[in-house]
Amino acid sequence: MIFVALIHYPVLNRHGDVINSAVTNLDMHDISRAARTYGVKRYYVVTPLPDQQQLAADLAGHWLHGTGGEKNPDRKNALGIMKITDSLESAVADIAGITGQKPEIYATSAMERVKSVSWEEMREKIKQDDRPFLLIFGTASGLADEIIEKTDGIISPIKGPTEYNHLSVRSAASITLDRLLGR
Amino acid sequence: MIFVALIHYPVLNRHGDVINSAVTNLDMHDISRAARTYGVKRYYVVTPLPDQQQLAADLAGHWLHGTGGEKNPDRKNALGIMKITDSLESAVADIAGITGQKPEIYATSAMERVKSVSWEEMREKIKQDDRPFLLIFGTASGLADEIIEKTDGIISPIKGPTEYNHLSVRSAASITLDRLLGR
Repeated sequence: MIFVALIHYPVLNRHGDVINSAVTNLDMHDISRAARTYGVKRYYVVTPLPDQQQLAADLAGHWLHGTGGEKNPDRKNALGIMKITDSLESAVADIAGITGQKPEIYATSAMERVKSVSWEEMREKIKQDDRPFLLIFGTASGLADEIIEKTDGIISPIKGPTEYNHLSVRSAASITLDRLLGR
Repeated sequence: MIFVALIHYPVLNRHGDVINSAVTNLDMHDISRAARTYGVKRYYVVTPLPDQQQLAADLAGHWLHGTGGEKNPDRKNALGIMKITDSLESAVADIAGITGQKPEIYATSAMERVKSVSWEEMREKIKQDDRPFLLIFGTASGLADEIIEKTDGIISPIKGPTEYNHLSVRSAASITLDRLLGR
C-alpha cells in the first residue's frame, strides 16, 4: 500500500537555509490527480503552520464540498485522498492507524546520495513487500537533512539525457509514481 | 530530435465543444523544465490569440530578461527553449527550418484510439529514426479531432493500476518525456 507526502517543512531555500514553504493549489491538484491515477491510498500535505493548514483546507474545500466538485467530480474524487498533517510523524501515525504497521519511508532527491536505491530495486521492493510505503517529496529546493535522516532510503535522482535536473515537484512526483507503479 | 507543443486551440471543454484555452504560467514553467531535462530541442506554446501570445511572452520575459532569471538562472535556462506560435503549422514550419525536415507528429490522449502506438514502439521509433518528432499535448479536456487528424499517430494512454485517468497536462507531459527519453 503506497502513501505520498509533500513536505513544506523542513525544506531548503536556494541558499540552503531551512524554511517553511507555502502550500499551493496546483501542487494539491496535480499530485492528488497523479496519486489517484496510480492507486496511492492517501496523499499528505505536510505543514506545521496553522494558517497554511487552513489555506490548504479552504482550497480543497471548494472542490470537496463546494461548487467545484459538483462541476468537476473528477477533481473531488482526486482531492478526496488528500489529508493535511502537521508533520511527517503525524502522517506515519495515520498510516499505522490505517494499515496496522509503520511505513517504510523513501525520499526522492535531485542529488545523488551515498546510499541511493535504484528504481528497479524500489519497484521490486514495493511489489514484493506487504508493508506500507511512504514516498516523500520536498517543495522549494528540496528536503532538509533533518528529514532525510528519518527515511529508510533515498531513490536515485530522476535523470534524462541532459545534465539539467530542475524538475518541478509536480513533475518529479508524477514521474516517480509512473516509474514505481505504472503499467 | 524531439520537439514538444502545448496546444491551446483547438481543444475541447468538458462538454466536448471546441474552445481556445488560456495560457498559464505553471504550464510554461513545468513543461519547459521537463522538456529541458529530457533534451527536447524546442517547446512550442500554441495559441492563435494575440493577447494570449502577449501574456505568454510577458510571463516568460520576467525570467528571460528580468530579475527572475538573474535570481534563478535554471528557470531562464528552461524557458529559453520555449517559443510562442499561432498554430501547429507554424511549429512544423519552425522545425523544418531548424532540421531541414518536417517532423512526424504524435499526440497523447487519455482515451484509447483505434490506431494507438505503444510506448515501446514509440521509444524505439525515436531511437532509430533520424527524422524530427513533434509530441503534442492538449490543454483543457484534450485535443479536438481536427488536430488529432493532423498527427501521424496517437500514443497509448498513460495508465496506472486504477481506472482514474485525469492527470494534469503537466503530469502527462512529464511522464511522456520520461517514458520516451528517460534513462
